[in-house]
Amino acid sequence: MSAHDRQPPYYLGIDLGGTNIKSGVVDDAGQPLSSVSLETEADRGPEVGIARLAEAGRRAVLTSGLSWDQITGVGLGSPGTMDLSRGMLLEPPNLPGWNHLTIRDLLAKKLDKQTVLQNDANAAAYGEYWTGAGRNTRSLVLFTLGTGIGCGIVDEGRIIEGRHSHGGECGHIIIQMENARQCSCGAYGHLEAYASATSLVKRAVEALDHDQSPSLLRKIPADELTSRAIDQAAEAGDPVASRLMRETARYLAVGAVCLMHTIDPDIVLFSGGMIAAGPSFLEAIRNDIRAMAFPTLAHKIRVEYAALGGDAGFIGAAGCARTAFALSA
Amino acid sequence: MSAHDRQPPYYLGIDLGGTNIKSGVVDDAGQPLSSVSLETEADRGPEVGIARLAEAGRRAVLTSGLSWDQITGVGLGSPGTMDLSRGMLLEPPNLPGWNHLTIRDLLAKKLDKQTVLQNDANAAAYGEYWTGAGRNTRSLVLFTLGTGIGCGIVDEGRIIEGRHSHGGECGHIIIQMENARQCSCGAYGHLEAYASATSLVKRAVEALDHDQSPSLLRKIPADELTSRAIDQAAEAGDPVASRLMRETARYLAVGAVCLMHTIDPDIVLFSGGMIAAGPSFLEAIRNDIRAMAFPTLAHKIRVEYAALGGDAGFIGAAGCARTAFALSA
Repeated sequence: MSAHDRQPPYYLGIDLGGTNIKSGVVDDAGQPLSSVSLETEADRGPEVGIARLAEAGRRAVLTSGLSWDQITGVGLGSPGTMDLSRGMLLEPPNLPGWNHLTIRDLLAKKLDKQTVLQNDANAAAYGEYWTGAGRNTRSLVLFTLGTGIGCGIVDEGRIIEGRHSHGGECGHIIIQMENARQCSCGAYGHLEAYASATSLVKRAVEALDHDQSPSLLRKIPADELTSRAIDQAAEAGDPVASRLMRETARYLAVGAVCLMHTIDPDIVLFSGGMIAAGPSFLEAIRNDIRAMAFPTLAHKIRVEYAALGGDAGFIGAAGCARTAFALSA
Repeated sequence: MSAHDRQPPYYLGIDLGGTNIKSGVVDDAGQPLSSVSLETEADRGPEVGIARLAEAGRRAVLTSGLSWDQITGVGLGSPGTMDLSRGMLLEPPNLPGWNHLTIRDLLAKKLDKQTVLQNDANAAAYGEYWTGAGRNTRSLVLFTLGTGIGCGIVDEGRIIEGRHSHGGECGHIIIQMENARQCSCGAYGHLEAYASATSLVKRAVEALDHDQSPSLLRKIPADELTSRAIDQAAEAGDPVASRLMRETARYLAVGAVCLMHTIDPDIVLFSGGMIAAGPSFLEAIRNDIRAMAFPTLAHKIRVEYAALGGDAGFIGAAGCARTAFALSA
């Protein structure tokens, strides 16, 4: 993108993950001018962590070709439990030792920039809403499929943060009451316990243990049995893998229908590694949604893959900074 | 209430039901100045229906002691499917023959007052938010338990209407995937199929058929076996009825937890005939929520019965008129 196309003011987005930090400068139209990645080194503790976040942010600005003074504000997306109004992490499972950290103000001080904190899944949803697969809509739900299931909801342009910073934790809606699977959070019957990439692998192991029917999956070493490998076996026609993928599509459709009957958005999006399963997996989800949702909604609400990939988090975080600080630009 | 306490401007709320129309004048603080009820006579068709709505509204204003000129606007709450932005009913099951009726504009013309249309469950939620059990909160979920399960969501003061007027249709979230009960809407596994008053009676009939264990319920004629009768048998110590009530509490808790993990409101409210079951039923719901929700939310989100009873609908509808027309007051 040439400098000519850039629309000031500019915002710095930072997406904190347990393994990596992604950061980029985003212009007023939601277009990223840069994108950098840095290891979080979370186990070195919060002081190093704040320094790494700042380093990622500085590199993103350097790479963008802008000067530091041209950055109006910073948006930080973070995983884990948090208190958004206080800008504080609570007890994030993926960031051991970062408990009760006033991360927003620490980073603001380190960068000398006004900073806003957002949940990472909410930030990703906002990124897709602003400039991704949900642009030109007013309301969307994004499910991010990985180790767990992240979820973010944007309704009429506003993130549903929740009154206790737990809005859109829809990986943990209950979709099965009896004989239910246990979720990584310890509770039973949650969407995440059925439809995450981790759950898919777990269900594959169970299926292989359960009977001796032949399957391509048996040739895969245990440590290489990933959701991608299962998907590829399904594409190669393996019946066990195909059944597992069909079940996963149905579970995701159940989650989507619950949100359609609660939020009734313009669009439901799926993101994360599992969307490598491609168009046929998306079409399977759509078919199951059509079979379960109110007919009028099944015809009107679009169901798509997300468009921004791993950049959605920092773009959306920058968008949150834009919402928070636009008046000061 | 003396005239001295009244706070202008004033709004007329009308709550249209399949059997009755309730209407009242509400002041700017959400206090009703009147409350009248009229039979809908829905089977006489929409023309008579509009006339009945207007008649209920006029009586409510007359009873309030205000003059017609003192009414700033009208809020109409209606059951059934609708297009809120166009002010139109689509195909409301409880109002046969009222299909594709531009009810908002027809009523506005009949009353010569600016009028806004809202879903009845949303209106009731807004009433509880404005001046009922949810006053002084910013975000709530209301479940209304009756033949079906109505639901309304207010988030940060805004009703979640949905992009296709289907926001808050949470009686139809899926809480069971396998061996699931059929809902009145035809689909399977919905909250309503487990936890409505109608479902409770249906489950009671099944329980009595299933085995021959003694129960007070067997002494009740089939046409008198209501949710209230089952609750009273439970209070009298009947084991079958007690189990049915415990199950109902658990189903409602599952629904509440799904909404807590999606909306994360200040308060979850239950309304409708089943709240006659009293404090022990509410406490059973709370206990099940505590066992299933994220601990931090289980401790922070209040769970209560609604406060406005059958007046919530017209009060909330008047509140919607206030939101829509306050500038013109």
